[in-house]
Amino acid sequence: MAARPGGHNLAVMNGPKEKVLTLDTMNACVKRVEYAVRGPIVLRALELEQELRQGVKKPFTEVIRANIGDAHAMGQKPITFLRQVLALCVHPDLLNSPDFPEDAKRRAESILQACGGHSLGAYSNSSGIQPIREHVAQYIQRRDGGIPADPNNIFLSTGASDAIVTVLKLLVAGEGRCRTGVLIPIPQYPLYSAALAELNAVQVDYYLDEDRAWALDVAELRRALCQARGHCRPRALCIINPGNPTGQVQTRECIEAVIRFAFEEQLFLMADEVYQDNVYAEGSQFHSFKKVLMEMGPPYSTQQELASFHSISKGYMGECGLRGGYVEVVNMDPAVQQQMQKMMSVRLCPPLPGQAVLDMVVSPPEPSDPSFTQFQALTEKVFNAVPGIRCNPVQGAMYSFPRIELPPRAIQRAKELGLAPDMFFCLRLLEETGICVVPGSGFGQREGTYHFRMTILPAAEKLRPLLEKLSQFHAKFTREYS
Amino acid sequence: MAARPGGHNLAVMNGPKEKVLTLDTMNACVKRVEYAVRGPIVLRALELEQELRQGVKKPFTEVIRANIGDAHAMGQKPITFLRQVLALCVHPDLLNSPDFPEDAKRRAESILQACGGHSLGAYSNSSGIQPIREHVAQYIQRRDGGIPADPNNIFLSTGASDAIVTVLKLLVAGEGRCRTGVLIPIPQYPLYSAALAELNAVQVDYYLDEDRAWALDVAELRRALCQARGHCRPRALCIINPGNPTGQVQTRECIEAVIRFAFEEQLFLMADEVYQDNVYAEGSQFHSFKKVLMEMGPPYSTQQELASFHSISKGYMGECGLRGGYVEVVNMDPAVQQQMQKMMSVRLCPPLPGQAVLDMVVSPPEPSDPSFTQFQALTEKVFNAVPGIRCNPVQGAMYSFPRIELPPRAIQRAKELGLAPDMFFCLRLLEETGICVVPGSGFGQREGTYHFRMTILPAAEKLRPLLEKLSQFHAKFTREYS
Ligand SMILES: Cc1ncc(COP(=O)(O)O)c(C=O)c1O
Ligand SMILES: Cc1ncc(COP(=O)(O)O)c(C=O)c1O
Repeated sequence: MAARPGGHNLAVMNGPKEKVLTLDTMNACVKRVEYAVRGPIVLRALELEQELRQGVKKPFTEVIRANIGDAHAMGQKPITFLRQVLALCVHPDLLNSPDFPEDAKRRAESILQACGGHSLGAYSNSSGIQPIREHVAQYIQRRDGGIPADPNNIFLSTGASDAIVTVLKLLVAGEGRCRTGVLIPIPQYPLYSAALAELNAVQVDYYLDEDRAWALDVAELRRALCQARGHCRPRALCIINPGNPTGQVQTRECIEAVIRFAFEEQLFLMADEVYQDNVYAEGSQFHSFKKVLMEMGPPYSTQQELASFHSISKGYMGECGLRGGYVEVVNMDPAVQQQMQKMMSVRLCPPLPGQAVLDMVVSPPEPSDPSFTQFQALTEKVFNAVPGIRCNPVQGAMYSFPRIELPPRAIQRAKELGLAPDMFFCLRLLEETGICVVPGSGFGQREGTYHFRMTILPAAEKLRPLLEKLSQFHAKFTREYS
Repeated sequence: MAARPGGHNLAVMNGPKEKVLTLDTMNACVKRVEYAVRGPIVLRALELEQELRQGVKKPFTEVIRANIGDAHAMGQKPITFLRQVLALCVHPDLLNSPDFPEDAKRRAESILQACGGHSLGAYSNSSGIQPIREHVAQYIQRRDGGIPADPNNIFLSTGASDAIVTVLKLLVAGEGRCRTGVLIPIPQYPLYSAALAELNAVQVDYYLDEDRAWALDVAELRRALCQARGHCRPRALCIINPGNPTGQVQTRECIEAVIRFAFEEQLFLMADEVYQDNVYAEGSQFHSFKKVLMEMGPPYSTQQELASFHSISKGYMGECGLRGGYVEVVNMDPAVQQQMQKMMSVRLCPPLPGQAVLDMVVSPPEPSDPSFTQFQALTEKVFNAVPGIRCNPVQGAMYSFPRIELPPRAIQRAKELGLAPDMFFCLRLLEETGICVVPGSGFGQREGTYHFRMTILPAAEKLRPLLEKLSQFHAKFTREYS
């Protein structure tokens, strides 16, 4: 085939050319993605921090990033044992140092033993280091009262995010009215809406019931499903338990009902259980979907497909930055499971430091001691004392998701600015107080209701003034617009 | 909308139900993905290792994984300074230890300073820690003889793989004859074919010229482009320089010609330069696309869109397992760049240990000392002495991609078994010698030619016997089938 004659100089002479990649020509699915947790509010917070550093005068002296559940960023110290082992893995010369305890050394040695060239610098198997997969299986088995877990069903990942997107990617197929629909809770963690938009799947919303402390109701699942069946093919149901941003912990009865529903309606279950170690409220207890599924017996235990996700970012260790997690799949078609393995191998492997830390998370040397109990109670107490703010109890996870009343004139003003009303509120809050929280619209909420999400992780001595400042701002904002 | 009456018990009674997710119902794009570097050969190697451990008798005592460019797995020791700093970052108590040099402590302190809560356990900004982005920019500027780089155009990533897929994802759009086409070299690194299959883009092959040491020829680019224009919309051109699996290093003239071609034909340029520090051959020198582009002046320097990728997995440090890398974008539409930022934020952030190591890779404390020169010369010498094997010089990267002749009866036998002929060769090689290499068919090759890829990373005392065993096997295989 011949070259296009002359095309060459013409192009050069034709003056400024269009970019190849513009908003008009780029991937439209990507363009539709929204991701509030790190959206415009966070970008503005970054700018404000920079301005503060440059000495610009503001009504506050620091930006408080209550927008994300990041324990270390909030001042929590890493668990010593865990970091000792990681340091030994990273720099094995330290194995000769008398400053490290023997159990840390043994653990590091056993991890290195399983690494190529005994180094965290070698790629691992794509599904993760084999002995660590085995330790994860043992952890699950202990957690679930002895119900067995198979290491071959466990895939380590780059944080839970990575594993969630991988499973969604497998599920997405079809065109037009046969496009895959995925049921997700509203409010949701926005990874779900973002991934579904990117994959061109249909997001099917089911609403959590704010009036019953964000409980999940099977009748509402059914409503959402029936409605969706008209325009897509619903194939999966995502559950976040404990909830983010809503903080509820599901009862065993509820989980059973959800499993029965998924089975009847032929839905693949995705259980996001990254907050399984963050359950504080009196009377709340974590039940894993895997355990409940197995205890329900056949046909559920033998047929219902399930993927359950966990992460090192949460729990008591909060190692977000290392990026580690896993997914356990149950009753997955073996051929599909091979496809999943293949998918993961394209990215080579999850980061080894995250895998190493996962190993410690699933077999810690001493019992964990979460100490957030006081904070969650405090949040609820302070907010519920304020007119115009209403806050459900935080049973688990690490967020409060209070509902706020906004005066009609504020809503009007927001619309004029082209902003969601709670985005307007949060932006003003940030500008005037330096407090960075995420508007409820980023997670989804019932039409006409407004919320924001803040983490309850700040240390107690910071949390109280933070809550008070926030409440005062709400009062001032309400006065200003009424 | 009402619930489907009765649907419920019927499903339970109807006996074994179909899985929701099967090969037939899953994402068809994912199913089409192939990934040879970790495909069936590697799975078989894993099994063989397990059998050896269980005491099964084999004609060899260990499996040699020459299938992947993984320096640490091949016995190379990590760079001490780099691991010292990482250990200090991971476990800051060590900052008080007299066993660590001052410069390592200073470096660790400055990295921690930039982390949330001064911990590698906090999420970073999605595009990476700001000071590290700045150091990357300085590195690029030094590398490119002073041509400036803007830290805001640099995005850190989870290995180069992550960044490459992100940029491809932005580029993919359209349906049917308007689907995005992406030009990739054949042979290629199979991440490209895998990502394009997954994204449902059209892979447009251009062939490297084996007879001219795998040189890239613009006439061949043009042929590939013209042919593709009939059935898709080609929008991007990927270059791997130095080449994997082919090991060639492009001349400056060639790069200029490629840039001119991309400009004229309105193609977004993707330069995979992860082997930029692995150039050994006498007379070969690495030229970055960015530098050549800038030196060509307007309109190229001001208009041609480019993304250039680098990784901590290669070079002299070979820190594959930590998963770090970056992409620099040049002349990208600012609105699209914002979209890229958003995309990255959905996955929260790249792993902090990989970011920290990238910081050292781009500003190392002492000159690097790659010492592979001897190996590459050895590989070429041994292979070219064998009848039926022909091997181009390895100018850069870390692989040899020799061409092998296979007897017609072997090709026949492979076809009967439903295998690509070079896959058949490599599987037999693995079974009989324990040597694990990747068939050329996984990277692409001209119809009727056969190759395999092996890494040249094994230590010299292991490499020579390896090469000889391989040559002997080829001779035996040829005898057996002729
Ligand atoms: C509900 C939920 N799922 C998943 C994730 C992802 O966590 P990671 O990717 O850090 O493991 C988060 C993080 O905040 C979350 O809140
Ligand atoms: C040409 C090329 N690009 C990209 C990569 C990906 O490397 P990583 O994701 O480990 O940075 C590799 C790895 O082998 C490669 O050879």
